[in-house]
Amino acid sequence: MEKTFWNSLDVPAGVRLNHLLSRVSEPDKDIIDFSLTEPLHKPPSFVVEEYKKYAPTIGKAINGAGGFGGLRELRGTIFSWAKARHAVKSKTFTENNVIATNGGSEAIFSAIQILAEGKREGYIVLPNPADPIYETAGRIAGLEPIYCSTMTSQQPTYRDLSEEQWAEVKVLVVNSPADPNGADLPVLTWEFLLKQSEEYGFYILSDERLNSIHRGKPPPGLLEMADSNDNPDMNRCVVVNDLTFRSNLAGMPSGFLAGDREFIKKANIYRAYHGLYIPVPNQKAAKLAWEDEDHVIENNKKYAGKFKDAPKRCNTSLPASDSLYGHYLWIRVPGDDIAFAVTAYGRTGVKVMPGQLLGKKTGNVNPAIGMVRIALIHNPGVCAAGLLELCKMVNPKHRSQTMGPS
Amino acid sequence: MEKTFWNSLDVPAGVRLNHLLSRVSEPDKDIIDFSLTEPLHKPPSFVVEEYKKYAPTIGKAINGAGGFGGLRELRGTIFSWAKARHAVKSKTFTENNVIATNGGSEAIFSAIQILAEGKREGYIVLPNPADPIYETAGRIAGLEPIYCSTMTSQQPTYRDLSEEQWAEVKVLVVNSPADPNGADLPVLTWEFLLKQSEEYGFYILSDERLNSIHRGKPPPGLLEMADSNDNPDMNRCVVVNDLTFRSNLAGMPSGFLAGDREFIKKANIYRAYHGLYIPVPNQKAAKLAWEDEDHVIENNKKYAGKFKDAPKRCNTSLPASDSLYGHYLWIRVPGDDIAFAVTAYGRTGVKVMPGQLLGKKTGNVNPAIGMVRIALIHNPGVCAAGLLELCKMVNPKHRSQTMGPS
Repeated sequence: MEKTFWNSLDVPAGVRLNHLLSRVSEPDKDIIDFSLTEPLHKPPSFVVEEYKKYAPTIGKAINGAGGFGGLRELRGTIFSWAKARHAVKSKTFTENNVIATNGGSEAIFSAIQILAEGKREGYIVLPNPADPIYETAGRIAGLEPIYCSTMTSQQPTYRDLSEEQWAEVKVLVVNSPADPNGADLPVLTWEFLLKQSEEYGFYILSDERLNSIHRGKPPPGLLEMADSNDNPDMNRCVVVNDLTFRSNLAGMPSGFLAGDREFIKKANIYRAYHGLYIPVPNQKAAKLAWEDEDHVIENNKKYAGKFKDAPKRCNTSLPASDSLYGHYLWIRVPGDDIAFAVTAYGRTGVKVMPGQLLGKKTGNVNPAIGMVRIALIHNPGVCAAGLLELCKMVNPKHRSQTMGPS
Repeated sequence: MEKTFWNSLDVPAGVRLNHLLSRVSEPDKDIIDFSLTEPLHKPPSFVVEEYKKYAPTIGKAINGAGGFGGLRELRGTIFSWAKARHAVKSKTFTENNVIATNGGSEAIFSAIQILAEGKREGYIVLPNPADPIYETAGRIAGLEPIYCSTMTSQQPTYRDLSEEQWAEVKVLVVNSPADPNGADLPVLTWEFLLKQSEEYGFYILSDERLNSIHRGKPPPGLLEMADSNDNPDMNRCVVVNDLTFRSNLAGMPSGFLAGDREFIKKANIYRAYHGLYIPVPNQKAAKLAWEDEDHVIENNKKYAGKFKDAPKRCNTSLPASDSLYGHYLWIRVPGDDIAFAVTAYGRTGVKVMPGQLLGKKTGNVNPAIGMVRIALIHNPGVCAAGLLELCKMVNPKHRSQTMGPS
């Protein structure tokens, strides 16, 4: 392929992993794939039924904001969900601060293009390691990334930015709870970022896609932090969420952008011109998924069982400590993470995501070296079996603290 | 709203029209809306059934090109359709020269972003008047538009470009058959453009979305023109098509990009990072729609009846001559087109699209002044009634040459 802007961008982590694994011979065991990001739990059947019910509408476009930013009824439902979930008291925060999107990734990419304002200058501040979409969307929008490692304290090292750098920031991306480490941003850090945003005028883009998966309570998000810090209009604040993780709807990407009203207006223009239409069956199904919390509780019970089992299953062989949020284990492995992933795949058929493929080198160091990400997306028996294989590889004398199938 | 890059872009023509019409009092007649672009004929029921059948797949994402550029089976079907439709003989043109998209607009916008290569310099050459998406996508990509009026000869005035301008062209957009005038590009013009593209290195983006609506045969397109002009690899050639017009599926935008293989690879990267996932029900339904020509023949019969009726219905009051392609009448009206549209709406309840809202002023002249676009998308009786109202407004003594309901 000729050298171009487009192929100078990072190849997605999953593609790079498959390339690495293609060098070892195919294991003669069943593959257990922990390297994925998307859940494998089933979507709620009432959501699927609603989608089916509206199939006959596909002949006719719903014009304007109904097609591109969501029907008023869907925006209303998302607004109510966001307001209730985040206990927003602001009276100026309404359904006009919300638009629907075709999933969280589309929303993040769109938001970054919009916030760059076509100027192709300034910084995008990113957690490191993180979902590579932030960096790639930033580069396509002409923004230069500043990486804040999360490996020292689980939290991005925002304090390292100089005043000169802060002055040139266009977008700062928060991911709470974070992929891969599951950590939520502390309230003091939220407050620091809101203060910086007010002082320097940059936007905070908060990716909260994992906040419906929790062992306990959902973590705070940007909307409530802005609301409780004298910013009821959500100025310079943009939140992304979706149904992929909340409702196991990875095959029907559906999400939203919420926050700053001027931003939402621009997002409407961008999405309409990009032809990012949302089919009616998708909108109707999404509405039901945001309205119902029972399926989210059920979903969390399934994850909770697996996260409770993992530390006992792994015992001292791998440090699979429980985390409060998300569906990933983020654990340190002996030696190099890529070597670990390749060996694990070849010997046991278990696929894990090496940290280095999620982290970016800065100063010649990849902060995520030695870590692997394990998505507990399979049923409990398969998750337990996969973890056991990894533990036995690390420690031939491994014994679990639990005997059950989970 | 604060002044920004995003709201400096043109507001969509339909929104501007509604704004103009909001100044007159609501007519006390039934509204007949000829100002739309999207068909109102019904989609094939077997396509809707297929969509419904695959509703249960929405829980699971199909990763990689299957989700973002189309399942291999869909790309194969589109490839076969394009090859057969355009009698492509090239042996290097394969299903790898094709990706599926979420509709034609998404494809056009994506293609222009990709072809601009993030450099934000150079020209995009556009027909004038035309679908405003070309210009807006070009501006968002940082390209400067050069408008080629189609009002002198029905064809864009490419010969007016200077050599200096040709040297800086990044993308030239062809729309054949054209919105609004229904004209197809002559073979000699195709050959001229292919020669220019080879000499100056720019890409031709050919929007062929209207080529499944015809009274007679489909017109030639870029793939066969490249193939028969010593460019079997389709270098620098990109074709867009979709099912909105072919199969009346405006509510499930589904289309494709085909041509230059290096471009297709870049489009795969762009679309994956933008999260432009194509749900499986959409892909399965689209596959059936590309495989079947019977519904296209039926659809064309419906349009043919309306296009045959229109000139007789309008007689000498309005010059509604038949056109070979597309679903629009593009006719000259007495006086100013905006005044005509506003008066027609207020007096008769008939909405038409004023040409000026589709044309761009160059040298202080809007080439589409005095023209209106009428989409014959309603059933024959409604189309006839709407045309009759317009004729009677123009000429109180109007008589149709036909008495039937059409």
